[in-house]
Amino acid sequence: MSPLFDELRRNRLLWLLALVPVVLAAQAVRPQAHTLLFVLSVAAIVPLAALLSRATEAVAARTGDAVGGLLNATLGNLTELLIALAALRAGQYVLVKASIAGAIVANALFMLGASFLIGGLRYHVQEYNRNNARLQAGLLFLATVAILVPSVIGEADVTQAPAFTQMLSLGLSVLLIVTYALGLLFSLKTHREFFAAADHAQSGEREWPLTLALATLAGVTVLVALVSEIFVESVQHAGTALGLSPAFVGFIIVALVGGAAEMVSALSAARRNRLDLSVGIALGSAVQIALFVAPVLVLLSYLIGPAPMDLKFWQGAVAMMLIAAMTASLVTNAGKSAWFVGALVITVYLIFAMTLYLLPPRIP
Amino acid sequence: MSPLFDELRRNRLLWLLALVPVVLAAQAVRPQAHTLLFVLSVAAIVPLAALLSRATEAVAARTGDAVGGLLNATLGNLTELLIALAALRAGQYVLVKASIAGAIVANALFMLGASFLIGGLRYHVQEYNRNNARLQAGLLFLATVAILVPSVIGEADVTQAPAFTQMLSLGLSVLLIVTYALGLLFSLKTHREFFAAADHAQSGEREWPLTLALATLAGVTVLVALVSEIFVESVQHAGTALGLSPAFVGFIIVALVGGAAEMVSALSAARRNRLDLSVGIALGSAVQIALFVAPVLVLLSYLIGPAPMDLKFWQGAVAMMLIAAMTASLVTNAGKSAWFVGALVITVYLIFAMTLYLLPPRIP
Amino acid sequence: MSPLFDELRRNRLLWLLALVPVVLAAQAVRPQAHTLLFVLSVAAIVPLAALLSRATEAVAARTGDAVGGLLNATLGNLTELLIALAALRAGQYVLVKASIAGAIVANALFMLGASFLIGGLRYHVQEYNRNNARLQAGLLFLATVAILVPSVIGEADVTQAPAFTQMLSLGLSVLLIVTYALGLLFSLKTHREFFAAADHAQSGEREWPLTLALATLAGVTVLVALVSEIFVESVQHAGTALGLSPAFVGFIIVALVGGAAEMVSALSAARRNRLDLSVGIALGSAVQIALFVAPVLVLLSYLIGPAPMDLKFWQGAVAMMLIAAMTASLVTNAGKSAWFVGALVITVYLIFAMTLYLLPPRIP
Repeated sequence: MSPLFDELRRNRLLWLLALVPVVLAAQAVRPQAHTLLFVLSVAAIVPLAALLSRATEAVAARTGDAVGGLLNATLGNLTELLIALAALRAGQYVLVKASIAGAIVANALFMLGASFLIGGLRYHVQEYNRNNARLQAGLLFLATVAILVPSVIGEADVTQAPAFTQMLSLGLSVLLIVTYALGLLFSLKTHREFFAAADHAQSGEREWPLTLALATLAGVTVLVALVSEIFVESVQHAGTALGLSPAFVGFIIVALVGGAAEMVSALSAARRNRLDLSVGIALGSAVQIALFVAPVLVLLSYLIGPAPMDLKFWQGAVAMMLIAAMTASLVTNAGKSAWFVGALVITVYLIFAMTLYLLPPRIP
Repeated sequence: MSPLFDELRRNRLLWLLALVPVVLAAQAVRPQAHTLLFVLSVAAIVPLAALLSRATEAVAARTGDAVGGLLNATLGNLTELLIALAALRAGQYVLVKASIAGAIVANALFMLGASFLIGGLRYHVQEYNRNNARLQAGLLFLATVAILVPSVIGEADVTQAPAFTQMLSLGLSVLLIVTYALGLLFSLKTHREFFAAADHAQSGEREWPLTLALATLAGVTVLVALVSEIFVESVQHAGTALGLSPAFVGFIIVALVGGAAEMVSALSAARRNRLDLSVGIALGSAVQIALFVAPVLVLLSYLIGPAPMDLKFWQGAVAMMLIAAMTASLVTNAGKSAWFVGALVITVYLIFAMTLYLLPPRIP
Repeated sequence: MSPLFDELRRNRLLWLLALVPVVLAAQAVRPQAHTLLFVLSVAAIVPLAALLSRATEAVAARTGDAVGGLLNATLGNLTELLIALAALRAGQYVLVKASIAGAIVANALFMLGASFLIGGLRYHVQEYNRNNARLQAGLLFLATVAILVPSVIGEADVTQAPAFTQMLSLGLSVLLIVTYALGLLFSLKTHREFFAAADHAQSGEREWPLTLALATLAGVTVLVALVSEIFVESVQHAGTALGLSPAFVGFIIVALVGGAAEMVSALSAARRNRLDLSVGIALGSAVQIALFVAPVLVLLSYLIGPAPMDLKFWQGAVAMMLIAAMTASLVTNAGKSAWFVGALVITVYLIFAMTLYLLPPRIP
């Protein structure tokens, strides 16, 4: 077990894991202390997510390129998926959709912008592989278009026929997952040489034994699922208590908590002048949520949700996703960055956050 | 006449021409057999369109660069124009607009994506003249913007004043045709050297005599006009009988039938690793419909339609055209392609087709 | 005073300054002759604006790079600001917003397109610094997004709660001004080497003494403010008398009058094959209005307006600004231009102008 302890000693963020039993105990003892449970569960999810992504990478490193790439591609946003599943099981579809849209926007704007800004404060100009960034931005744009169609068509007409939206969402979900699978075939098999620069290069750390990696992955998944349930239950109550609109809680808080682990990786890569990696994590994660997590949630809603979920989003969320995809595309087009580019992208995110913060409570 | 017979012997698609008399006879004998007439007229239009575009090229080859370029630029989408004219004369304005929007989307997404996919399955990476593609994509974007304005302004306010929309559509049509003419001046005269790569290079075939070419052009135009009338009359009835929504019939079926001939040329060019040609046909055809066919139909509606037609489109069609233009612009920006790019572009088209297929019948 | 007289002798446009006392006298004698006052005030503002921008440059040239850059960046659109302030004081918020949106669109489309066209008629192909154009286009896109948010969110829901829109506009204004200040820090200090090509290079003219420059700046500012007041009072009445819709007057006439001086500079640079300068003036001016003039007007409305002004625009204006930003971005992406590019960009502007001209009077 020593590589795990090594990791725990080296990475101080993981010391917060001590809060996992605390939050589980608190939930048993004081289930109505929503704000306390919210704060504790956030503080517990962040280190769990970091450990989860470390374990996924460790399994991936042991299982060879193809299986490993597949693992990273499906489990890379496991935390977001588990949080959304907890909300799905609770029937909180508005929260599920807000967390999907919020995660796409947070990755494509906040994570990308913060990487550019942090990197740019240290290096005058940073260059990165513009081909990979372009492909990811293109994928993100196309994924966003797919997600938008039911919302746009649904709004344009008074086609509020639930059967239509339901059927369309189901078909789109299948189409998105097939596209995602084809994308993996493309980037892991037929054209892998184009994506060489962006792989999660290892920093010479000791590798974990496979059994340890698998056991950690399984154990942490269960813990994240448990804490996510407490988080989802407490978040809206805590938001109300703290004077936050539900839209702000769903789009901003849940999305930032779910993506905290990748955020840490992306920013640390930017600080080491490895913007390729930062851009790959930020955009790749946004693409994965749009093309894989969102449709999987739609399909799972038929199995575990109280009712089927569709892909129809609040119109403000649609606008934000589209603007995020266009901004990411515009900004990564040049293949180089300076601090001001990061400041601008973060400003777009701040504009969204401010708008959501000020929104009256009944929306969306 | 032997070059024509040569062509008929070599090109098996043309054997379907035998169905032309069949469909005309069937219409005389059983005018109510809509589904039969629909199938027959589709099967007859496709070879007629192929022969029409062959004859146009033959006339163009005989009349020198300037006149020939002009001919290709005005008669290149003659089939689409004749089908739309048949619908216009029948007062089916919803169908006319759907076929215009559908043809733009089919060319910019399906034809482009299929070319990328077919070419990419054979060649690992294909490169093409990115300058030409960029100009075409830019033209397409600007043309789309022009078409969108009346719809967007009309929706934004409750300016349902028909006089306003009518006047605006008339003014826009004139503006679009002038722009198209200026574009021809630019690409055929003042800056022709930029467009050298994309001309429809001949494959060493025997050239047709001018009289034969002109006679074929005239004769086939009449036949296409006749069969188009049967097609337009039968298509919506057949759609209903086959369980297809009117939107799907207008946007997808009519557009694909009208563009079948160019589709064949674009795909065969992609298979021969001549993506320049494929991209030129796909985007050039979309531009031509937006900048020339659509405004000509508006102007002709004053002469031959039961009432003036305007340029106000259903909001879903507007969204599709805009997304198609943006996708084409994004995708052709790099000047190279692989199979997955084609798969993505086709996926966007499939998303639209699926949405239209599922739409309840009363829309648009 | 001789450099000023030199300028007056050399630049025939400035002879129109003789109309300044005429319009002030006419206003005193015949305050109801709106059409006359409108024509006179337009003819007087144009040379005043030219002199104002000449004096700003003269002060900037005397005060060194940093202060000078700051002056150009804040006073570069002083005429637009003074006209909008006159409308603000008169409580004509619809006109203020129309003039902001109109100035952005006029700069990003008409001024840019006219520069490309004029330059392209003289030179076969013109190249320019694509990096600078790209940054400006990116800034413009991001600024437009910021301005759009309140309008889009406001429309999407029935959040007509004025308190929400007001608070959001205030927050956005602060954010925009901070971004603008960061942008100045970036382009004038930390990364000034990237912007070297675009500075307003002096044409070897005699420099003005600082006192003369400052006195001219102060004096002309007062005159522009006085004439603007007459212009704002008369423009809508004159528009009605001339059969123009209020939308056309606000978006087109006011914007073109306010930007006439920069237009002259941009076109003359294009004619001298200095497209860098033209693109810099056109896009830089659009950016300045979006990121600086608009939020300053919101903040000033708390001090001098009859009521606070918000950033919520008419939906048609939002669409136009977004299309203008996208067009500018698309067109400047290549870093080279020919006459047809200019013709296309102007066509987009003509489409907008035609639409506004035909709009029924009650909109927006």
